[in-house]
Amino acid sequence: MDRLRLSQHISRQFNEELETMRSLVLRMGGLVEQQLGIGVRCLRERESAGLKQVVEAEREINRLELSIDEDCVRIMVRRQPAASDLRLLLMAGKTVADLERMGDESTRVAKLAARLVAGPFEPRYLDELAALGEITREMLRGCLDAFARGDVALARRVMAEDKIADRSYKAQLVELAEYMERLPAIIPRAIDGLFVARSLERVGDHCKNICEQVIYLVRGEDVRHPKSRREQADQTSEQGTSGDLAAG
Amino acid sequence: MDRLRLSQHISRQFNEELETMRSLVLRMGGLVEQQLGIGVRCLRERESAGLKQVVEAEREINRLELSIDEDCVRIMVRRQPAASDLRLLLMAGKTVADLERMGDESTRVAKLAARLVAGPFEPRYLDELAALGEITREMLRGCLDAFARGDVALARRVMAEDKIADRSYKAQLVELAEYMERLPAIIPRAIDGLFVARSLERVGDHCKNICEQVIYLVRGEDVRHPKSRREQADQTSEQGTSGDLAAG
Repeated sequence: MDRLRLSQHISRQFNEELETMRSLVLRMGGLVEQQLGIGVRCLRERESAGLKQVVEAEREINRLELSIDEDCVRIMVRRQPAASDLRLLLMAGKTVADLERMGDESTRVAKLAARLVAGPFEPRYLDELAALGEITREMLRGCLDAFARGDVALARRVMAEDKIADRSYKAQLVELAEYMERLPAIIPRAIDGLFVARSLERVGDHCKNICEQVIYLVRGEDVRHPKSRREQADQTSEQGTSGDLAAG
Repeated sequence: MDRLRLSQHISRQFNEELETMRSLVLRMGGLVEQQLGIGVRCLRERESAGLKQVVEAEREINRLELSIDEDCVRIMVRRQPAASDLRLLLMAGKTVADLERMGDESTRVAKLAARLVAGPFEPRYLDELAALGEITREMLRGCLDAFARGDVALARRVMAEDKIADRSYKAQLVELAEYMERLPAIIPRAIDGLFVARSLERVGDHCKNICEQVIYLVRGEDVRHPKSRREQADQTSEQGTSGDLAAG
């Protein structure tokens, strides 16, 4: 966490509060990882145990989201932090929102996966969904590590993996469409398969969001929407305003 | 905005800064509404003009997201605001993230809608997608009004509408599945239809998120995850901690 500028804090208690918040975010991330893992294992091993755990984890994830948001406001009020820490707190709020939505998507994956492995569904399509699941799970693990260690290089690698996830997602849409054309009776199940793929692809997007936030925190560099950002910079310089906090 | 406790601020300049931020959020919301409107009109009128506008609006939406986040941090640093205003700023950050994702979903709707109306697709399915689009557009208008006026009653009405959107969404999944079974040649187009329905349903979810944030800001009452919240309250009272900022 020292790379996230925590070393600048004089108050040890403040450091501890930020550290506690960080570990709550990581705990939340760990629960999402567990949820996603259950869905992916279900697709791979064709066994749907663990659904109850998924629902329990969802509740704990929601509870953590509320609790971390309250902590953010509490810390801001007590400590009147500097710009870099305020940014950390604002981004923590966004990160937990991303994690919460990943939790929702993972719950959806696990429930649909249980239906898919129960019905008549060709194994190779399950395998391909499981493979996409493994990619996004790897991305999730990577983005949590990047968050924990403030590791910009890792964050960039995870962001690059999102392209692989997108390619796999698109290929599966085409294959599932062909499967449906070949075997119309499979259509309702194959629609479940489409939505599993879609939810997994969304998990990848949320990982990318979190990585962008990690880079912003460590480097003070906002890498969201690079194109819009350039336009904004152009406009700012045209208007002659200073944008005094943009970099620091 | 006075219902959002702005009346408590002594500094007129601070009020103005918050007011500016609020109008930027509303401008962003207006752009998303415009994007969504183009997609819905395309479904209803079978004409795909306005796609260029959608892409342009997306860039402006992204630019506004970055700019509002920077404003939040800037205001926090300059003003060292009280808890209620910090909550407002934290929630503004979440609201713009929701708006940005609604913008993405709306762009997707417009692009897929243009494909749907070009191909052979039975008009009644287009009409039903358009009807779902109108529901979510109404929700978006409602949640922006609720945000602008701090109107809790309106926010609750919009949240209730989300159930109607969900029912319409689920009904359309079933109907599109039947359509595909009846006419396998339509499968690739019908998958586009599924994803239009899914994106519209997601827009409804984001509206609900924003309404929850409005209620939180006005009432200091966090209505996200009511079940998890009760559990959290139980745990807090068991642990005997005070949760001093939870209500104020």
